[in-house]
Amino acid sequence: MTGEEAARHREKMQKRKAVQDAEVAGKTIEKGLLMVHTGAGKGKSTAAFGLALRMLGRGRSVGVVQFIKGAWSTGERTPLEAMPGLEWHSMGEGFTWETQDRERDVAAARRAWGKALELMQRPGLGLLVLDELCIALRYEYLPVEEVVAALVARPPALHVVVTGRNAPPALTEAADLVTEMKLIKHHFAAGVKAQEGIEF
Amino acid sequence: MTGEEAARHREKMQKRKAVQDAEVAGKTIEKGLLMVHTGAGKGKSTAAFGLALRMLGRGRSVGVVQFIKGAWSTGERTPLEAMPGLEWHSMGEGFTWETQDRERDVAAARRAWGKALELMQRPGLGLLVLDELCIALRYEYLPVEEVVAALVARPPALHVVVTGRNAPPALTEAADLVTEMKLIKHHFAAGVKAQEGIEF
Repeated sequence: MTGEEAARHREKMQKRKAVQDAEVAGKTIEKGLLMVHTGAGKGKSTAAFGLALRMLGRGRSVGVVQFIKGAWSTGERTPLEAMPGLEWHSMGEGFTWETQDRERDVAAARRAWGKALELMQRPGLGLLVLDELCIALRYEYLPVEEVVAALVARPPALHVVVTGRNAPPALTEAADLVTEMKLIKHHFAAGVKAQEGIEF
Repeated sequence: MTGEEAARHREKMQKRKAVQDAEVAGKTIEKGLLMVHTGAGKGKSTAAFGLALRMLGRGRSVGVVQFIKGAWSTGERTPLEAMPGLEWHSMGEGFTWETQDRERDVAAARRAWGKALELMQRPGLGLLVLDELCIALRYEYLPVEEVVAALVARPPALHVVVTGRNAPPALTEAADLVTEMKLIKHHFAAGVKAQEGIEF
Protein backbone atom coordinates (compact mmCIF):
# COMPACT_ATOMS: atom_id res chain seq x y z
CA MET A 1 0.00 0.00 0.00
CA THR A 2 1.41 3.38 -1.00
CA GLY A 3 1.32 6.39 1.31
CA GLU A 4 -1.35 7.91 -0.92
CA GLU A 5 -3.54 4.79 -0.69
CA ALA A 6 -3.12 4.71 3.07
CA ALA A 7 -4.17 8.35 3.29
CA ARG A 8 -7.24 7.67 1.12
CA HIS A 9 -8.18 4.73 3.32
CA ARG A 10 -7.81 6.86 6.43
CA GLU A 11 -9.96 9.64 4.99
CA LYS A 12 -12.70 7.17 3.94
CA MET A 13 -12.68 5.56 7.39
CA GLN A 14 -12.82 8.96 9.14
CA LYS A 15 -16.03 9.68 7.21
CA ARG A 16 -17.35 6.21 8.06
CA LYS A 17 -16.57 6.76 11.74
CA ALA A 18 -18.43 10.09 11.71
CA VAL A 19 -21.50 8.31 10.31
CA GLN A 20 -21.21 5.54 12.91
CA ASP A 21 -20.80 8.00 15.77
CA ALA A 22 -23.85 10.00 14.64
CA GLU A 23 -25.89 6.79 14.45
CA VAL A 24 -24.88 5.75 17.96
CA ALA A 25 -25.59 9.26 19.32
CA GLY A 26 -29.08 9.12 17.78
CA LYS A 27 -30.03 6.12 19.90
CA THR A 28 -30.99 7.28 23.36
CA ILE A 29 -33.84 5.04 24.55
CA GLU A 30 -33.19 2.52 27.32
CA LYS A 31 -35.85 -0.12 27.87
CA GLY A 32 -36.38 -3.76 28.54
CA LEU A 33 -36.52 -5.55 25.19
CA LEU A 34 -38.86 -8.27 24.05
CA MET A 35 -36.64 -10.43 21.84
CA VAL A 36 -37.64 -13.37 19.65
CA HIS A 37 -35.29 -16.01 18.21
CA THR A 38 -37.17 -18.05 15.64
CA GLY A 39 -36.60 -19.94 12.38
CA ALA A 40 -35.58 -23.48 11.45
CA GLY A 41 -31.84 -22.90 11.92
CA LYS A 42 -29.59 -23.75 14.83
CA GLY A 43 -28.70 -21.19 17.50
CA LYS A 44 -32.06 -19.95 18.81
CA SER A 45 -31.72 -21.35 22.35
CA THR A 46 -27.90 -21.23 22.22
CA ALA A 47 -27.97 -17.47 21.60
CA ALA A 48 -30.55 -17.05 24.37
CA PHE A 49 -28.25 -18.86 26.81
CA GLY A 50 -25.35 -16.74 25.51
CA LEU A 51 -27.43 -13.67 26.45
CA ALA A 52 -28.07 -15.19 29.89
CA LEU A 53 -24.31 -15.59 30.29
CA ARG A 54 -23.71 -11.97 29.25
CA MET A 55 -26.34 -10.69 31.70
CA LEU A 56 -24.97 -12.83 34.55
CA GLY A 57 -21.49 -11.57 33.63
CA ARG A 58 -22.80 -8.05 34.27
CA GLY A 59 -23.90 -9.12 37.75
CA ARG A 60 -27.64 -9.12 36.91
CA SER A 61 -30.02 -11.97 37.69
CA VAL A 62 -31.57 -14.21 35.05
CA GLY A 63 -34.58 -16.53 35.05
CA VAL A 64 -34.96 -19.44 32.62
CA VAL A 65 -38.17 -21.37 31.95
CA GLN A 66 -37.93 -24.27 29.50
CA PHE A 67 -41.35 -25.01 28.02
CA ILE A 68 -40.34 -28.16 26.15
CA LYS A 69 -37.74 -30.38 27.71
CA GLY A 70 -35.92 -32.36 25.06
CA ALA A 71 -34.69 -35.91 25.45
CA TRP A 72 -31.27 -34.77 26.57
CA SER A 73 -30.01 -32.57 29.37
CA THR A 74 -28.15 -29.50 28.23
CA GLY A 75 -24.44 -28.92 28.78
CA GLU A 76 -24.95 -25.24 29.51
CA ARG A 77 -27.23 -25.72 32.48
CA THR A 78 -24.54 -26.84 34.93
CA PRO A 79 -22.11 -23.93 34.40
CA LEU A 80 -24.91 -21.34 34.27
CA GLU A 81 -26.39 -22.67 37.51
CA ALA A 82 -23.00 -22.40 39.18
CA MET A 83 -23.17 -18.62 38.64
CA PRO A 84 -24.94 -16.51 41.27
CA GLY A 85 -28.18 -14.96 40.07
CA LEU A 86 -29.57 -17.76 37.90
CA GLU A 87 -32.90 -19.46 38.49
CA TRP A 88 -33.66 -22.32 36.07
CA HIS A 89 -36.94 -24.19 35.67
CA SER A 90 -37.37 -27.06 33.22
CA MET A 91 -41.14 -27.32 33.18
CA GLY A 92 -41.88 -29.17 29.94
CA GLU A 93 -42.68 -32.82 29.53
CA GLY A 94 -40.64 -33.36 26.37
CA PHE A 95 -41.76 -33.02 22.78
CA THR A 96 -45.37 -33.86 22.11
CA TRP A 97 -44.43 -36.98 20.13
CA GLU A 98 -42.59 -38.17 23.25
CA THR A 99 -45.41 -37.67 25.75
CA GLN A 100 -48.18 -38.69 23.29
CA ASP A 101 -50.65 -37.13 25.71
CA ARG A 102 -52.01 -33.74 24.75
CA GLU A 103 -53.73 -32.97 28.04
CA ARG A 104 -50.49 -33.61 29.90
CA ASP A 105 -48.66 -31.30 27.44
CA VAL A 106 -51.22 -28.54 27.98
CA ALA A 107 -51.02 -28.87 31.77
CA ALA A 108 -47.20 -28.72 31.67
CA ALA A 109 -47.26 -25.61 29.45
CA ARG A 110 -49.73 -23.96 31.82
CA ARG A 111 -47.46 -24.70 34.82
CA ALA A 112 -44.45 -23.32 32.91
CA TRP A 113 -46.36 -20.16 32.00
CA GLY A 114 -47.35 -19.71 35.66
CA LYS A 115 -43.66 -19.85 36.57
CA ALA A 116 -42.86 -17.32 33.83
CA LEU A 117 -45.50 -14.91 35.21
CA GLU A 118 -44.05 -15.32 38.69
CA LEU A 119 -40.49 -14.60 37.50
CA MET A 120 -41.63 -11.52 35.55
CA GLN A 121 -42.59 -9.96 38.88
CA ARG A 122 -39.31 -10.91 40.59
CA PRO A 123 -37.73 -7.60 41.70
CA GLY A 124 -34.46 -6.80 39.94
CA LEU A 125 -34.61 -9.61 37.40
CA GLY A 126 -32.50 -8.53 34.39
CA LEU A 127 -33.46 -11.14 31.80
CA LEU A 128 -36.09 -13.82 31.47
CA VAL A 129 -35.47 -16.64 28.96
CA LEU A 130 -38.66 -18.38 27.81
CA ASP A 131 -37.13 -21.29 25.94
CA GLU A 132 -39.31 -22.97 23.28
CA LEU A 133 -42.35 -20.93 24.28
CA CYS A 134 -43.09 -20.59 20.53
CA ILE A 135 -43.59 -24.37 20.35
CA ALA A 136 -46.13 -24.27 23.18
CA LEU A 137 -47.93 -21.46 21.30
CA ARG A 138 -47.77 -23.26 17.97
CA TYR A 139 -49.43 -26.38 19.39
CA GLU A 140 -51.98 -24.14 21.11
CA TYR A 141 -51.04 -25.34 24.57
CA LEU A 142 -51.42 -21.68 25.58
CA PRO A 143 -53.54 -18.89 24.03
CA VAL A 144 -51.25 -16.51 22.16
CA GLU A 145 -53.32 -13.39 23.05
CA GLU A 146 -52.98 -14.08 26.77
CA VAL A 147 -49.23 -14.67 26.50
CA VAL A 148 -48.50 -11.59 24.37
CA ALA A 149 -50.62 -9.34 26.61
CA ALA A 150 -48.69 -10.45 29.70
CA LEU A 151 -45.33 -10.01 27.95
CA VAL A 152 -46.27 -6.49 26.84
CA ALA A 153 -47.40 -5.66 30.41
CA ARG A 154 -44.10 -6.83 31.96
CA PRO A 155 -42.02 -4.45 34.13
CA PRO A 156 -40.56 -1.89 31.69
CA ALA A 157 -36.88 -2.58 32.44
CA LEU A 158 -37.15 -6.37 32.10
CA HIS A 159 -35.55 -7.98 29.03
CA VAL A 160 -37.29 -11.12 27.78
CA VAL A 161 -36.12 -13.54 25.11
CA VAL A 162 -38.54 -16.04 23.60
CA THR A 163 -37.23 -18.90 21.46
CA GLY A 164 -38.67 -21.53 19.15
CA ARG A 165 -39.70 -22.12 15.55
CA ASN A 166 -42.81 -20.57 14.04
CA ALA A 167 -43.11 -17.52 16.27
CA PRO A 168 -46.75 -16.37 15.93
CA PRO A 169 -47.33 -12.99 14.20
CA ALA A 170 -48.92 -11.48 17.33
CA LEU A 171 -45.65 -12.14 19.18
CA THR A 172 -43.30 -10.80 16.49
CA GLU A 173 -45.48 -7.70 16.11
CA ALA A 174 -45.14 -6.98 19.83
CA ALA A 175 -41.37 -7.69 19.87
CA ASP A 176 -38.55 -5.14 19.78
CA LEU A 177 -36.08 -7.56 18.18
CA VAL A 178 -36.82 -10.50 15.94
CA THR A 179 -34.06 -12.66 14.55
CA GLU A 180 -34.74 -15.57 12.23
CA MET A 181 -32.10 -18.25 12.58
CA LYS A 182 -32.27 -19.45 8.98
CA LEU A 183 -31.04 -22.90 8.10
CA ILE A 184 -28.69 -22.57 5.13
CA LYS A 185 -26.89 -25.89 5.56
CA HIS A 186 -27.15 -28.49 8.33
CA HIS A 187 -24.87 -31.41 9.16
CA PHE A 188 -27.85 -33.62 10.16
CA ALA A 189 -28.71 -33.77 6.43
CA ALA A 190 -25.22 -35.24 5.83
CA GLY A 191 -25.83 -38.02 8.38
CA VAL A 192 -23.89 -36.43 11.24
CA LYS A 193 -25.42 -37.25 14.61
CA ALA A 194 -26.10 -34.94 17.55
CA GLN A 195 -22.83 -34.57 19.46
CA GLU A 196 -22.01 -33.65 23.06
CA GLY A 197 -21.01 -30.02 23.49
CA ILE A 198 -22.65 -29.06 20.17
CA GLU A 199 -26.29 -30.11 20.25
CA PHE A 200 -26.51 -30.91 23.97
CA MET B 1 -60.91 -33.13 24.51
CA THR B 2 -62.96 -36.33 24.21
CA GLY B 3 -61.47 -39.76 24.82
CA GLU B 4 -61.66 -40.41 21.08
CA GLU B 5 -59.76 -37.19 20.26
CA ALA B 6 -57.12 -38.04 22.85
CA ALA B 7 -56.70 -41.50 21.32
CA ARG B 8 -56.37 -40.00 17.82
CA HIS B 9 -53.73 -37.56 19.10
CA ARG B 10 -51.83 -40.41 20.75
CA GLU B 11 -51.89 -42.49 17.56
CA LYS B 12 -50.71 -39.56 15.43
CA MET B 13 -47.87 -38.81 17.87
CA GLN B 14 -46.84 -42.49 18.00
CA LYS B 15 -46.37 -42.36 14.21
CA ARG B 16 -44.52 -39.07 14.49
CA LYS B 17 -42.23 -40.53 17.16
CA ALA B 18 -41.45 -43.55 14.92
CA VAL B 19 -40.41 -41.14 12.13
CA GLN B 20 -38.26 -39.10 14.56
CA ASP B 21 -36.60 -42.20 15.99
CA ALA B 22 -35.79 -43.54 12.50
CA GLU B 23 -34.30 -40.17 11.56
CA VAL B 24 -32.09 -40.07 14.65
CA ALA B 25 -30.99 -43.69 14.09
CA GLY B 26 -29.99 -42.82 10.50
CA LYS B 27 -27.41 -40.32 11.72
CA THR B 28 -24.27 -42.15 12.75
CA ILE B 29 -21.33 -39.95 11.81
CA GLU B 30 -19.30 -38.24 14.53
CA LYS B 31 -16.91 -35.52 13.41
CA GLY B 32 -15.64 -32.12 14.25
CA LEU B 33 -17.93 -29.59 12.61
CA LEU B 34 -17.06 -26.42 10.76
CA MET B 35 -19.90 -24.07 11.68
CA VAL B 36 -20.61 -20.60 10.31
CA HIS B 37 -22.90 -17.98 11.90
CA THR B 38 -23.45 -15.20 9.40
CA GLY B 39 -26.13 -12.67 8.37
CA ALA B 40 -27.07 -9.16 9.44
CA GLY B 41 -29.11 -10.25 12.47
CA LYS B 42 -28.20 -10.38 16.14
CA GLY B 43 -26.97 -13.58 17.80
CA LYS B 44 -24.00 -14.69 15.69
CA SER B 45 -21.34 -14.22 18.38
CA THR B 46 -23.84 -14.75 21.20
CA ALA B 47 -24.71 -18.23 19.89
CA ALA B 48 -20.98 -18.99 19.45
CA PHE B 49 -20.35 -18.08 23.10
CA GLY B 50 -23.41 -20.15 24.04
CA LEU B 51 -21.73 -23.10 22.28
CA ALA B 52 -18.51 -22.37 24.18
CA LEU B 53 -20.50 -22.50 27.42
CA ARG B 54 -22.11 -25.81 26.43
CA MET B 55 -18.72 -27.34 25.54
CA LEU B 56 -17.13 -26.10 28.78
CA GLY B 57 -20.16 -27.50 30.62
CA ARG B 58 -19.23 -30.89 29.16
CA GLY B 59 -15.74 -30.56 30.62
CA ARG B 60 -14.06 -29.93 27.25
CA SER B 61 -11.63 -27.09 26.53
CA VAL B 62 -12.43 -24.12 24.29
CA GLY B 63 -10.30 -21.54 22.51
CA VAL B 64 -11.59 -18.11 21.47
CA VAL B 65 -9.89 -15.72 19.06
CA GLN B 66 -11.59 -12.38 18.49
CA PHE B 67 -10.51 -10.92 15.16
CA ILE B 68 -12.23 -7.56 15.59
CA LYS B 69 -12.40 -6.08 19.03
CA GLY B 70 -15.35 -3.71 19.34
CA ALA B 71 -15.40 -0.54 21.37
CA TRP B 72 -16.80 -2.31 24.41
CA SER B 73 -15.67 -5.23 26.51
CA THR B 74 -18.06 -8.15 26.53
CA GLY B 75 -20.05 -9.26 29.57
CA GLU B 76 -19.59 -12.93 28.72
CA ARG B 77 -15.81 -12.90 28.84
CA THR B 78 -15.49 -12.72 32.63
CA PRO B 79 -17.76 -15.68 33.51
CA LEU B 80 -16.40 -17.83 30.66
CA GLU B 81 -12.82 -17.14 31.75
CA ALA B 82 -13.68 -18.17 35.28
CA MET B 83 -14.41 -21.67 33.96
CA PRO B 84 -11.54 -24.13 33.64
CA GLY B 85 -10.61 -24.98 30.05
CA LEU B 86 -11.09 -21.62 28.37
CA GLU B 87 -8.36 -19.72 26.54
CA TRP B 88 -9.43 -16.32 25.20
CA HIS B 89 -7.47 -14.04 22.87
CA SER B 90 -8.75 -10.63 21.79
CA MET B 91 -6.40 -9.94 18.91
CA GLY B 92 -8.22 -7.32 16.87
CA GLU B 93 -7.63 -3.61 16.87
CA GLY B 94 -11.27 -2.57 16.71
CA PHE B 95 -13.38 -1.91 13.65
CA THR B 96 -11.51 -0.53 10.68
CA TRP B 97 -13.30 2.83 10.98
CA GLU B 98 -11.92 3.04 14.52
CA THR B 99 -8.28 2.29 13.68
CA GLN B 100 -8.32 4.17 10.33
CA ASP B 101 -5.08 2.39 9.51
CA ARG B 102 -5.37 -0.50 7.07
CA GLU B 103 -1.85 -1.82 7.52
CA ARG B 104 -2.37 -2.02 11.27
CA ASP B 105 -5.66 -3.87 10.67
CA VAL B 106 -3.96 -6.37 8.35
CA ALA B 107 -1.13 -6.97 10.82
CA ALA B 108 -3.62 -7.52 13.67
CA ALA B 109 -5.65 -10.00 11.59
CA ARG B 110 -2.46 -11.86 10.68
CA ARG B 111 -1.49 -12.13 14.38
CA ALA B 112 -4.99 -13.35 15.26
CA TRP B 113 -4.87 -15.96 12.48
CA GLY B 114 -1.47 -17.16 13.76
CA LYS B 115 -3.06 -17.66 17.20
CA ALA B 116 -5.97 -19.55 15.60
CA LEU B 117 -3.53 -21.89 13.81
CA GLU B 118 -1.70 -22.48 17.09
CA LEU B 119 -4.95 -23.29 18.97
CA MET B 120 -6.08 -25.68 16.20
CA GLN B 121 -3.09 -27.86 17.07
CA ARG B 122 -3.74 -27.71 20.83
CA PRO B 123 -4.22 -31.35 21.92
CA GLY B 124 -7.72 -32.09 23.21
CA LEU B 125 -9.28 -28.76 22.25
CA GLY B 126 -13.03 -29.35 21.85
CA LEU B 127 -14.12 -26.10 20.20
CA LEU B 128 -12.43 -23.13 18.60
CA VAL B 129 -14.42 -19.89 18.26
CA LEU B 130 -13.12 -17.57 15.53
CA ASP B 131 -15.18 -14.51 16.30
CA GLU B 132 -15.68 -12.00 13.44
CA LEU B 133 -13.23 -13.86 11.20
CA CYS B 134 -15.70 -13.21 8.34
CA ILE B 135 -15.10 -9.46 8.75
CA ALA B 136 -11.33 -9.95 8.42
CA LEU B 137 -11.98 -12.00 5.25
CA ARG B 138 -14.44 -9.50 3.84
CA TYR B 139 -11.97 -6.64 4.15
CA GLU B 140 -9.29 -8.91 2.66
CA TYR B 141 -7.07 -8.67 5.70
CA LEU B 142 -6.46 -12.40 5.15
CA PRO B 143 -6.66 -14.47 1.93
CA VAL B 144 -9.80 -16.61 2.03
CA GLU B 145 -8.19 -19.59 0.22
CA GLU B 146 -5.44 -19.85 2.85
CA VAL B 147 -7.93 -19.63 5.73
CA VAL B 148 -10.39 -22.18 4.30
CA ALA B 149 -7.59 -24.63 3.44
CA ALA B 150 -6.29 -24.52 7.03
CA LEU B 151 -9.78 -24.92 8.49
CA VAL B 152 -10.46 -27.95 6.29
CA ALA B 153 -7.11 -29.46 7.32
CA ARG B 154 -7.84 -29.07 11.06
CA PRO B 155 -7.74 -32.12 13.40
CA PRO B 156 -10.82 -34.19 12.48
CA ALA B 157 -12.47 -34.12 15.94
CA LEU B 158 -12.13 -30.35 16.41
CA HIS B 159 -15.31 -28.25 16.20
CA VAL B 160 -14.81 -24.72 14.86
CA VAL B 161 -17.34 -21.90 14.76
CA VAL B 162 -16.69 -18.85 12.58
CA THR B 163 -18.84 -15.73 13.00
CA GLY B 164 -19.42 -12.50 11.16
CA ARG B 165 -21.49 -10.95 8.39
CA ASN B 166 -20.89 -11.73 4.73
CA ALA B 167 -19.32 -15.17 5.08
CA PRO B 168 -17.44 -15.77 1.80
CA PRO B 169 -18.82 -18.55 -0.47
CA ALA B 170 -15.58 -20.57 -0.21
CA LEU B 171 -16.11 -20.76 3.56
CA THR B 172 -19.81 -21.68 3.48
CA GLU B 173 -19.09 -24.35 0.83
CA ALA B 174 -16.52 -25.95 3.13
CA ALA B 175 -18.76 -25.70 6.22
CA ASP B 176 -20.90 -28.47 7.74
CA LEU B 177 -23.39 -26.04 9.26
CA VAL B 178 -24.32 -22.57 8.06
CA THR B 179 -26.88 -20.48 9.90
CA GLU B 180 -27.91 -17.06 8.69
CA MET B 181 -28.99 -14.85 11.56
CA LYS B 182 -31.50 -12.83 9.59
CA LEU B 183 -32.57 -9.43 10.84
CA ILE B 184 -36.36 -9.30 10.82
CA LYS B 185 -36.77 -6.40 13.24
CA HIS B 186 -34.17 -4.53 15.31
CA HIS B 187 -34.63 -2.17 18.24
CA PHE B 188 -31.75 0.07 17.05
CA ALA B 189 -34.05 1.19 14.22
CA ALA B 190 -36.53 2.35 16.90
CA GLY B 191 -33.87 4.49 18.58
CA VAL B 192 -33.04 2.08 21.40
CA LYS B 193 -29.38 2.26 22.41
CA ALA B 194 -26.98 -0.61 23.09
CA GLN B 195 -27.59 -1.79 26.65
CA GLU B 196 -25.44 -3.62 29.18
CA GLY B 197 -26.17 -7.33 29.33
CA ILE B 198 -27.80 -7.31 25.90
CA GLU B 199 -25.33 -5.89 23.38
CA PHE B 200 -22.23 -6.00 25.59
